[in-house]
Amino acid sequence: MELLRRKIENEGIVLSDGVLKVDSFLNHQIDPELMKEIGLEFAERFKNEGITKIVTIESSGIPPAVMAALELGVKVIFARKKKSLTLTDNLLVSTVYSFTKQEENTISVSHQFLDETDNVLIIDDFLANGEAAKGLIDIVKQSGASVIGIGIVIEKSFQKGAAELKELGYRVESLARIASLVDGKVNFVEELEEVTS
Amino acid sequence: MELLRRKIENEGIVLSDGVLKVDSFLNHQIDPELMKEIGLEFAERFKNEGITKIVTIESSGIPPAVMAALELGVKVIFARKKKSLTLTDNLLVSTVYSFTKQEENTISVSHQFLDETDNVLIIDDFLANGEAAKGLIDIVKQSGASVIGIGIVIEKSFQKGAAELKELGYRVESLARIASLVDGKVNFVEELEEVTS
Repeated sequence: MELLRRKIENEGIVLSDGVLKVDSFLNHQIDPELMKEIGLEFAERFKNEGITKIVTIESSGIPPAVMAALELGVKVIFARKKKSLTLTDNLLVSTVYSFTKQEENTISVSHQFLDETDNVLIIDDFLANGEAAKGLIDIVKQSGASVIGIGIVIEKSFQKGAAELKELGYRVESLARIASLVDGKVNFVEELEEVTS
Repeated sequence: MELLRRKIENEGIVLSDGVLKVDSFLNHQIDPELMKEIGLEFAERFKNEGITKIVTIESSGIPPAVMAALELGVKVIFARKKKSLTLTDNLLVSTVYSFTKQEENTISVSHQFLDETDNVLIIDDFLANGEAAKGLIDIVKQSGASVIGIGIVIEKSFQKGAAELKELGYRVESLARIASLVDGKVNFVEELEEVTS
């Protein structure tokens, strides 16, 4: 997705060989026009898959997930990283380690909104080691629903998550794929389909 | 906003005289069509105010804020409740007590995205005692920007937040105003302008 790659090139800040900061449009400040385009792109890629629900995780996954859901005509469920007084019944839980926050979170989704009739698209902002995606897959499976695919805004292809998920048989659609972060520069994975898009 | 009131009547669960659970469309599962309508309504109410930024707080404030921002042609900044490895520089911070989570959060916004030229619309999902709104106002003021108004999806008018904010001189626009939660029933504030909308 060319618009997203340009945005990453122009506004992304390479903090280290492993960490890309995109706080100006995705992780702190949000660019709603870009989110809309991202939502349209996910919807286009999954429109024939009979998606009935989108599952994401708070907080940065929510804007792209909501925009994709609007386009696909389905609802979004965002996994909570913390207990809430109002989220108590019939919880599906899993555990996710966050490298950027250096902590382990118990994530939870109410079983009420997800069951074996659902075809789920998982959406998240970043895919690195795949911790969050695997936690969400675990929760969707516990509910009896099917994981149809995983939509990622920015994939760090040099980390193991994408490869592992594909090996497990999941369809992973990443809108920007980063081959490396070296000397402060973002290098994208070169792909035929990306060259023509 | 009639659509929202119907949704609250049909899907809201009164957990106690103080707590309304709307997990099916706002706080856990998100209804993107409703969020779009909510965004349109906020945009309509503030379209002539020269808004340059919307500020909200993770997580449930994000969908209505992004939809309003899309319509107003501005960006959203969501305050973080936790430190992140990538959110470190030049932080504006405040403290917010959450009754529903029973904990105190240090919320933070990067000064980089907010300055004295900005006219800010604050958006949040609920207004009860006004803790979150006051924390966001504090942060916006620290940045030198102006608070033009506060847009709330659901106001619990029987709690002190709305009255206090109005006394402080802020324009508060709440799309649904709840007079009481009694015996499991939601009673809305009757208003002339709501009767005709």
